[in-house]
Amino acid sequence: MLILSGAMAEQEFKSSVAVFPVQLQWGECDPAGIIFYPTYFRWFDAATWNMFAGVGYHAKRMRAEHLAMPLVAADCQFKHPAEQQDRAEVRSRIQRWGGKSFVVTHDVVREDGVLLAQGSETRVWGRYENGPGTPLKGQAISDGLKALFAIR
Amino acid sequence: MLILSGAMAEQEFKSSVAVFPVQLQWGECDPAGIIFYPTYFRWFDAATWNMFAGVGYHAKRMRAEHLAMPLVAADCQFKHPAEQQDRAEVRSRIQRWGGKSFVVTHDVVREDGVLLAQGSETRVWGRYENGPGTPLKGQAISDGLKALFAIR
Amino acid sequence: MLILSGAMAEQEFKSSVAVFPVQLQWGECDPAGIIFYPTYFRWFDAATWNMFAGVGYHAKRMRAEHLAMPLVAADCQFKHPAEQQDRAEVRSRIQRWGGKSFVVTHDVVREDGVLLAQGSETRVWGRYENGPGTPLKGQAISDGLKALFAIR
Amino acid sequence: MLILSGAMAEQEFKSSVAVFPVQLQWGECDPAGIIFYPTYFRWFDAATWNMFAGVGYHAKRMRAEHLAMPLVAADCQFKHPAEQQDRAEVRSRIQRWGGKSFVVTHDVVREDGVLLAQGSETRVWGRYENGPGTPLKGQAISDGLKALFAIR
Repeated sequence: MLILSGAMAEQEFKSSVAVFPVQLQWGECDPAGIIFYPTYFRWFDAATWNMFAGVGYHAKRMRAEHLAMPLVAADCQFKHPAEQQDRAEVRSRIQRWGGKSFVVTHDVVREDGVLLAQGSETRVWGRYENGPGTPLKGQAISDGLKALFAIR
Repeated sequence: MLILSGAMAEQEFKSSVAVFPVQLQWGECDPAGIIFYPTYFRWFDAATWNMFAGVGYHAKRMRAEHLAMPLVAADCQFKHPAEQQDRAEVRSRIQRWGGKSFVVTHDVVREDGVLLAQGSETRVWGRYENGPGTPLKGQAISDGLKALFAIR
Repeated sequence: MLILSGAMAEQEFKSSVAVFPVQLQWGECDPAGIIFYPTYFRWFDAATWNMFAGVGYHAKRMRAEHLAMPLVAADCQFKHPAEQQDRAEVRSRIQRWGGKSFVVTHDVVREDGVLLAQGSETRVWGRYENGPGTPLKGQAISDGLKALFAIR
Repeated sequence: MLILSGAMAEQEFKSSVAVFPVQLQWGECDPAGIIFYPTYFRWFDAATWNMFAGVGYHAKRMRAEHLAMPLVAADCQFKHPAEQQDRAEVRSRIQRWGGKSFVVTHDVVREDGVLLAQGSETRVWGRYENGPGTPLKGQAISDGLKALFAIR
């Protein structure tokens, strides 16, 4: 089981904002004609991968270096129902860095500015001992990694 | 936007527990070989529908009576990674009743007793004004509805 | 049950090509690290909706006019495995028009030109008698509708 | 790219039938209130894994022995719309064995006997050279493997 380090209580980080564009599809809506809510978490996950790719930690590098960022917790508040073909942006930032873990917050904003949903993911920064599928060990988050996400 | 009533601060409800069996499939795992986390929220949603079906509010009745239970918030803590073909139970109960909303908690327990994940959903009890797809209005939750979920 | 009209044997249609961009996400890959194949069908469905939106039949109009295009059949050949963060285009065209049905073909082409997958959907053009959720009746496909997709 | 061997033209195989129970969930339905069609392919994939698990090739063994069964093609005919909470069985059998590939057919039958959908998957029997994520090589299908699925 993954435990957050005490360092999580640190003050908030001045993070740059990564933008991940989405459009709600027919098959992501439910019989009420609005977004099926786990879709927001699929977007959060993709947005976090996109944010890391944006600073050089793209998927193929993560895989080659046996890096991973499994989840400890996730939450979302649903503010306004999204409908099919709505376009929105997921705006992601690092809220806090812990010793081996970090919190990403995500705002989902429709193209007309309406806030659809707001949530966060708590993730561990880890490395597979022997490649994907083998046990994962949390890694200390370096200042170099943090600096990649800092507002310039 | 949906607002929770102040009644949400009420004391916890002695709820019966509904059990929804799941088995993790190949396509619900990610390249790390473990569960892709939005899968837990898909299970939570299905487990809540199953819990309501168990007391008579099955899908066809919900649809015929224009009832719905959209989400206000959801969260999950991921305790232990699930792997392909793992069998588990989602154990769901009503944690609190508000005036027009309620909180369901879900424990996902693997067949050997290991707690995989733990989360909650906050939902509104509502009715479509003119059938699915039309605006939804929150409905006062009756004592009769609450009684269906009470421990007997 | 839906039956294709004999008109399906008509000669092929000179269709314009609609382009729907996609990028493969972490959660759409399986433990082998490649695309989980139903993802291609999710893309086909979204690409067809996008193609119709492109000629004026966008989602909100389809809903307002009680139109739908349910599936009769779908197939796909998987040519080359897609990996996380691969970017591709789904290139869709109308292959044939029947009396009340039509066939859409989809080529999924990675940004470097590699054909990842190729498939088709056979759909009925229909209208809900009393709005979404009520019985659907196939509609004769007008020459006006066909003309919207013809090469100009 | 994967090529089917000429042996695919062999006569059909007398296969045992594996049964995989499913129930359609809220989030697997679309705004028309019926099944979103890629769900059938998710069920097909899970049913094939279940069929192989049933004869001893369960997920953990497949993983430990670096075995995989990637797709060459898939198709489905949609016969009757499934609705939320409908229970059905996916009835799977081996239709044909090729040299390194095989065809599985799937019938989805609702609990009242109505055929909802019918489809097939063509798969290669392969082994990862160096574990999951490394290149896959097709393996000759042994008579021993075939015998596991034969009607007794």
